Amino acid sequence: MIHNPVIDAMMARRSVRKFTDQKLDDETLETIACAGFQAPFAGQLCSLIVTRRARLPFHAAVMFTICVDLHRMERIMARRGWKTVSNNLSLLFFGIQDATLVAENLTIAAESLGLGSCLLGNTPYEAPKLRKLYKLPPRVFPLVQLAMGYPDEEYPPRPRYPLEFSLFEEEYPELTDEMITEAIKVMDEGYLSQGYYVKQKAMIRLEKGRKETFTYEDYSWTEHISRKWGQWMEDPEDILKPLRVCGFPIQGEKQD
Amino acid sequence: MIHNPVIDAMMARRSVRKFTDQKLDDETLETIACAGFQAPFAGQLCSLIVTRRARLPFHAAVMFTICVDLHRMERIMARRGWKTVSNNLSLLFFGIQDATLVAENLTIAAESLGLGSCLLGNTPYEAPKLRKLYKLPPRVFPLVQLAMGYPDEEYPPRPRYPLEFSLFEEEYPELTDEMITEAIKVMDEGYLSQGYYVKQKAMIRLEKGRKETFTYEDYSWTEHISRKWGQWMEDPEDILKPLRVCGFPIQGEKQD
Repeated sequence: MIHNPVIDAMMARRSVRKFTDQKLDDETLETIACAGFQAPFAGQLCSLIVTRRARLPFHAAVMFTICVDLHRMERIMARRGWKTVSNNLSLLFFGIQDATLVAENLTIAAESLGLGSCLLGNTPYEAPKLRKLYKLPPRVFPLVQLAMGYPDEEYPPRPRYPLEFSLFEEEYPELTDEMITEAIKVMDEGYLSQGYYVKQKAMIRLEKGRKETFTYEDYSWTEHISRKWGQWMEDPEDILKPLRVCGFPIQGEKQD
Repeated sequence: MIHNPVIDAMMARRSVRKFTDQKLDDETLETIACAGFQAPFAGQLCSLIVTRRARLPFHAAVMFTICVDLHRMERIMARRGWKTVSNNLSLLFFGIQDATLVAENLTIAAESLGLGSCLLGNTPYEAPKLRKLYKLPPRVFPLVQLAMGYPDEEYPPRPRYPLEFSLFEEEYPELTDEMITEAIKVMDEGYLSQGYYVKQKAMIRLEKGRKETFTYEDYSWTEHISRKWGQWMEDPEDILKPLRVCGFPIQGEKQD
């Protein structure tokens, strides 16, 4: 492994969920935002709402609401005599990438300045509320929020899959049962040894009469993530509605 | 603006489309990949195919195919007795974010090691071909490719919208005509002064009998991007088909 300040910042980053009272000054905020917007992909289909006034989760100093933004683009296109014909799903694919490239630069830029942050994955489902709160015009979709501030907690970075389970040379290999076992082991033992779920009291409740057999002694990452995708967001309408409310109706496969 | 090696790497990054003969050694490749996978969002719904063998665009030393990967997750879930119920569109929203967070770390990690890179936005539309080429199992979607190598060209970073057009305090403002004018000016004059489109011979042809009135003297960023969204990807099937082929059928709004 090669080390330099950039690599080290990336390897040291972990989500922070407890912040001190210290505020961000304007120069720090603008530096982080500029570094964010210099991310690749020239679509620039991303804008940021930053709030420092409200009471924020985790006692954060600022909250970035990272938006997929077609409003500015379409205002510019109108000036040039153009109207969007591209379908919304394709636009969202590009817009989500633009916005997420920005998000990652914000995260790492913050880390390099002694700040911590935490991405809030629930944002799309709160889009109808956020739209009103931040007066988002149509064609602006709040994709993800990033809470940021000076960390008031210390712990190591979280485990990741073994590299041979994630980086494949030349082609996707047949994944053996042993590789699956090893990936589960690395993730679950890693999270258990950090006491992650017990500290956060983050066990996902079993639904539909399933009987709980886990305690915080053995509940870990693969069980947690299985319960998410195995129980939540069954109805496409959960995401179609927020998209529609924000001006991005999705025309999909024929139903039936 | 505050400076440190991380911020400076982000501000210096630009897409590189011409590379020297120099190859990446294994340690460099693994360092970049590890930095990539340490990105936030613990879904880890991303895997990378890296190819060094094939002839690559721009004479790149390596190509990363950055995939949204539900295959590994579902193998792990099966082991735990779970099946995915979450709808594909929601899963893709998370997966695209996971994959793009990784992509940005790869880009900046590479920059910090003297490498350059270029994201290839056309990847989703080539998914049916890439799936065969890289033997991707079902539930793995090639989202974006990243060509990487040692740069054989020099130029400054590309312009971005003025910060006041992208970073909004507390709420989304009413964008005035003057703000639109200024954003267009900054982008178009910036790209023209760098001779970007003339060097790349990248003018997008007008379709449907529209008559060309631009030359490389005045063709710039806002015209280019208007022609994309104003002419391309009208049919949702353009993206629905690659998704379906890779095992992600999208159930959308009712049609008619």
